[in-house]
Formats: sequence, C-alpha cells, structure tokens
Amino acid sequence: MKTIQSDNYPIFFDNSITELVNFVKQGNYSRSFILTDENTGVHCLPALKEQFADMDNFDIIEINAGEESKDIDFCIGIWKMLIDFGADRKSLMINLGGGVISDMGGFAASTFKRGIDFVHVPTTLLSQVDASVGGKTGIDIDSIKNIIGTFTQPKAVFIAYDFLNTLPARQILSGLAEMLKHGLIVDKAYWEALKSSDLSKPSVELVHWSVEIKNKVVIEDPTEKGIRKALNFGHTVGHAVETNSLINDKTPLTHGEAIAIGMICEAYLSHKKTGLSSAELEEIVKVISDLYPKYNIKESSHKALCALMLKDKKNQNGKINCTLLTRIGQCNLDNICTDAELCDSLSYYANL
Amino acid sequence: MKTIQSDNYPIFFDNSITELVNFVKQGNYSRSFILTDENTGVHCLPALKEQFADMDNFDIIEINAGEESKDIDFCIGIWKMLIDFGADRKSLMINLGGGVISDMGGFAASTFKRGIDFVHVPTTLLSQVDASVGGKTGIDIDSIKNIIGTFTQPKAVFIAYDFLNTLPARQILSGLAEMLKHGLIVDKAYWEALKSSDLSKPSVELVHWSVEIKNKVVIEDPTEKGIRKALNFGHTVGHAVETNSLINDKTPLTHGEAIAIGMICEAYLSHKKTGLSSAELEEIVKVISDLYPKYNIKESSHKALCALMLKDKKNQNGKINCTLLTRIGQCNLDNICTDAELCDSLSYYANL
Repeated sequence: MKTIQSDNYPIFFDNSITELVNFVKQGNYSRSFILTDENTGVHCLPALKEQFADMDNFDIIEINAGEESKDIDFCIGIWKMLIDFGADRKSLMINLGGGVISDMGGFAASTFKRGIDFVHVPTTLLSQVDASVGGKTGIDIDSIKNIIGTFTQPKAVFIAYDFLNTLPARQILSGLAEMLKHGLIVDKAYWEALKSSDLSKPSVELVHWSVEIKNKVVIEDPTEKGIRKALNFGHTVGHAVETNSLINDKTPLTHGEAIAIGMICEAYLSHKKTGLSSAELEEIVKVISDLYPKYNIKESSHKALCALMLKDKKNQNGKINCTLLTRIGQCNLDNICTDAELCDSLSYYANL
Repeated sequence: MKTIQSDNYPIFFDNSITELVNFVKQGNYSRSFILTDENTGVHCLPALKEQFADMDNFDIIEINAGEESKDIDFCIGIWKMLIDFGADRKSLMINLGGGVISDMGGFAASTFKRGIDFVHVPTTLLSQVDASVGGKTGIDIDSIKNIIGTFTQPKAVFIAYDFLNTLPARQILSGLAEMLKHGLIVDKAYWEALKSSDLSKPSVELVHWSVEIKNKVVIEDPTEKGIRKALNFGHTVGHAVETNSLINDKTPLTHGEAIAIGMICEAYLSHKKTGLSSAELEEIVKVISDLYPKYNIKESSHKALCALMLKDKKNQNGKINCTLLTRIGQCNLDNICTDAELCDSLSYYANL
C-alpha cells in the first residue's frame, strides 16, 4: 500500500517494522524507549525485539492495559522512568500499542524536557485508523477524557496490519466505529464500500482508505478550528457514554461501542436539526445496530450524561456543541444542542 | 518605555495594567483565570482586581509561594480547578507572579484542553527579565527543574515595573543575576552599564534593556537548537547548586543566588577552556562577589552536584554540556566538561 504523507511525517503501510528499524538507525538517537502495555508486550513486542536484536540502546516501559492507565499518575510514572533511564533530548519514544499508548506516550514525549521525538506503531484497528493520525496527544484526569494534552506531530507512523490478527473481535469492532464515521462525515463512497464488505476483519485497503480520509481532514485543520470538528461526529454523546461506563460498569464499553451509540443519537439529532432524511437515519441505525450489541442506558442516568457532555473540550460558554450530518457523506459543524434535545436522542436510542 | 515585539506577541512596559484590561476585554474570552500566589495575592492582586472591577467573568487560583509549588501535584491542582470552574477553550489564564507562576501557569494553560491562551504579568525582577520572555513553560518532578514543559508563547506580557517596589532586596538580587548574565554572554556595553549603576534597585531602563537582549536571542532560536543556549551560561552548575540547596537547606538559595555561583564557576571554566582572560575572570568574580553573599559548598557534596548536572536537560549522551565565555560579551556554546573540571570549578568558588 502507498505510504501516506501527513503533516511533515510519513505513515507507512508496507514492511512497517523494517521501516521502523531503518528510521531508528538513521535517526541517530541516543536511546530509544518502547512504550507498551501488557497485551502488546505479549503479542507484538517480540516481533519488534527480534528486529532490534543488533541494537543495545533501547529500554522497554510497560504499563497496564486499558483506558484506566491513561491517567496523569501513569504519565508521571513514564516521566520518572525516562529520568531514571537517563533519557535526553536526543531520545526517541516508540509508542507500541493502541490509542492509550499513542495518546499518553505522545503526551509524555511532547512534554519531556520540552519535547523529544516520538513515533507510533499502532497495534489495534482503532489506533491505526484514528489515534495514530492527527497529532493529538492526551491524558485523562478524573476520567475526563483527553482533558490534558498537546497538538504535537509524531515523526512517523508505522502501521503493521498483521498485528490485527492478534486482536479479539470486540477490538476490531471498536476500530470499525471510527471507520464508519469517516464515511458518514465526508465520504459516501467509503460508507458504501464498508457496507458491502466483510467487516469481521476489514481489509488493509479499507484501513488505508480510512487513514487517507482522516489525514486529509487533519492536514486541512491541524488545531481544530474548523473542518477537523467533523471528526467529532458521534463523540459528544459517545464520550459521555464512554466515561459514564468507565465509572459505573464492571466491563466498560470500548471506545468504538460508545461512539456507535453516540453516532445513532447524533444521527437522530441530525434528522431533527440539520435535515438528515428519515431513510438515511434508518440506514445508519440499521448498519450500526446490526454490528454492535444493544447497551442499556437508563433514563435515570440522562442527567449525569448531560453533565459529562458539558465538560467536553468542544464546548464554549457552557453550551454543548455537536457535529451533525446533513446527509451521508456530508456534515455540519457547531450545532448547539440543548439538554432536552440530547436527552431525547438518548431516549431514541433506548427505544430502538 | 517602548513596547518590545517578541515572537508574535507584545511585551508592554507602560500603563501595563491598563493594557492588560484592554487585552482581556478585546479578546472576547469566555472567562479569565488569574493564577497567583499568597505573596502576590497580597501585594499585587488588589491593584489588578480594582481594574477588573467592572468584569464579573474571572476567577482567582492561588497557590503557595516558592519553588516547591512548581511541582506536578500543584499543576494537577490547577488543572482540576480549571475543570471545576468550567474553563473552556476560549478561556484565558493570567499568570500574575514570579517565575514559578509564569512557568507553571504557562504549562498548565498550554496543555489544558490541548492549549488555551495565557498572558504573563511578571511581578518579580527575575520573572520580568527572564521567565516571562521566551515561551518556555515548565514544572519540576522530584526537584528536577523544568524537566516537564512545552515551548509555547504567551499572547502578551505586561511588565509592571512598579510591582518591584513590593520586593525584598534578596528578590531584587535574584533577578539581577540574569541581567548580569545577559551582559556577559552577548552585550559588553550592558555589563558596563550595570557595573556603573546603583544595583539595589535597577532602573526601568536597565530592565527594558535586559528584556531586549533576551528577546533578541530567543527570537533567533526559539527552540534552543543554537544561540539560545547562550542563556544557559551559569546554569549548568547553578541549577545543580539550586536543586541541592532546595533539597538540603532550611532557607534555600534563590535562583539568582545559585546562578551567581554558577556564573563564577563557569567563568572559571571559561578561563580554563575557552580563553577568557585572567583580568576578565577577576572582574566577573569581583562584581558578583561584591553583590552576593558567600555560600558554603562542601567538598563532600561535589559528587551529588555532578550527578544533578548529569540530569540536566541540556546534556546529550551522558555528557555535561556548558555554555562558556570567550570574553565579556561573547560566548561559546556546547563545551563538554568532565566531572573533574566541574569539581575543580566548585573548589575554585569554595576557595575564593
């Protein structure tokens, strides 16, 4: 697959691990730090270590898997390990893992000694199509997602499609939600292609296409002043549902499962407010409902969910701001939604 | 005094508080947050609050005074207060205080929701001539100074010279060290002007001149790849002495007192390594020694000091890197110094 050129950095698809080794060797780094989690440590790290066999100047920093790890306390742990390992400004951070690893590793690197180089090796479908592209880094505080972060570009991204073979089906579905979103907001042809594919394991071509769409959007608007807000479709409701689930559920929703719910709610709001047709609303609901299990949102939690939406980064002046669709493949930015409208959309989902 | 234009932001000297009020009003911010400490809260905040009397959309965040507060834990406290106060991306942070406030407030703002606007109102001589110019933000971890931070420019700096009237003499001396440094590294005329002035309270002209020098250096090299390293003169030894004092002394050295020691040691190294003449070394030592009290550095602490220097951000590949002088007003970057040389310079200071 063709290498995609992003904002001053390449996104490799072919021979990615070999390309990574070349990058590290040519970069003349004083030391490399591979940030990984316990899962990736088992499934993906050995392949990397094999390739790094003739290098001795790297260390491994392993954290617990899961969104709970994307907290400032774990980030402090990473900073302290970098200090203890003697990292200097010519060190490199290699983020090997899913979105938690790339978001937090990117943040830790972008602030360590006021910024060291980092690259992403995304190992989940979600991080391949979403977290690894666009230069957003972030950590959570008190379960508020990505409340602290920077806009900093990686030096390169190495997408190793084969790592997806190690993923459980639920993790594939988690990434798929962002791929569906890419079609819904700006590319109807991609939405159609997804609809007619076997989505239990999306092909590398579909992954590549998804990265191309996201890359095009973020290059146009790296700091989210305009069109990049399109990517927030499904995320106003979705992030709140995800945070609420992280706090209350024994087995929390994945990011994609929460965004799938968010996309149904916000497609409903799009029908009410920005002219999405009934037929397209039904189509969206059917595609998503066929893929994702139904989640029980109690009416008693509506208020808490709206309170969470109010804390969302995207808001201004205490008003909840949504990206909505006008039709499949086209969106409309900056729609203020009231608590009543948002509760209504949650009820719509509950009554499906 | 003339407004100085830095990298896309102005540094005001005249009617600074009025200029600040105009800036806030014209900026159309959703809310302003004044970050201050207990001292500034008493001496400077009332003057500001008076000017803000007809505005109701601001909150005050007060932290303890002192370098101990520049820690990640206090920074987390600031982030949580911003969340609790409902800060959004159109909020403004006003850093009213010394270097701790501007460094930490700048860092907190530059990472909150991936970056909100901030301005500095420096209230100490040190922060007026140093911390408020140049776009470095930072916090300490485990007493390692500024180990975490970003390069982010403020939107404006408002230097209110009158605030210096509230400062104790020791704080004036702390800022003076950076002014002396500015002369030593790039401007002999400024060094001469300082020598012939009453330095118990440097004039506003001398403050302005100092800011001009620093501004010129950082504009040329904002991210410290080259000439900006000139500003590190005195800071390799000085930072280590400062950190060591913070850990061990009941009344720790001020930043400037530590940098004064660092400048003597590094002037000595300059004499040994980069051709600074005996006469100029003696002149530097005399000027600094006449201003600053002698500090007792025990020989038994030399090893600990070198270990601290090794952790300095400026190093690469485990080698200690110093900016040295070739003569007064001219410097030489990237001089590797051995432990033995650094210990020798500490002994030189001890034996003065």
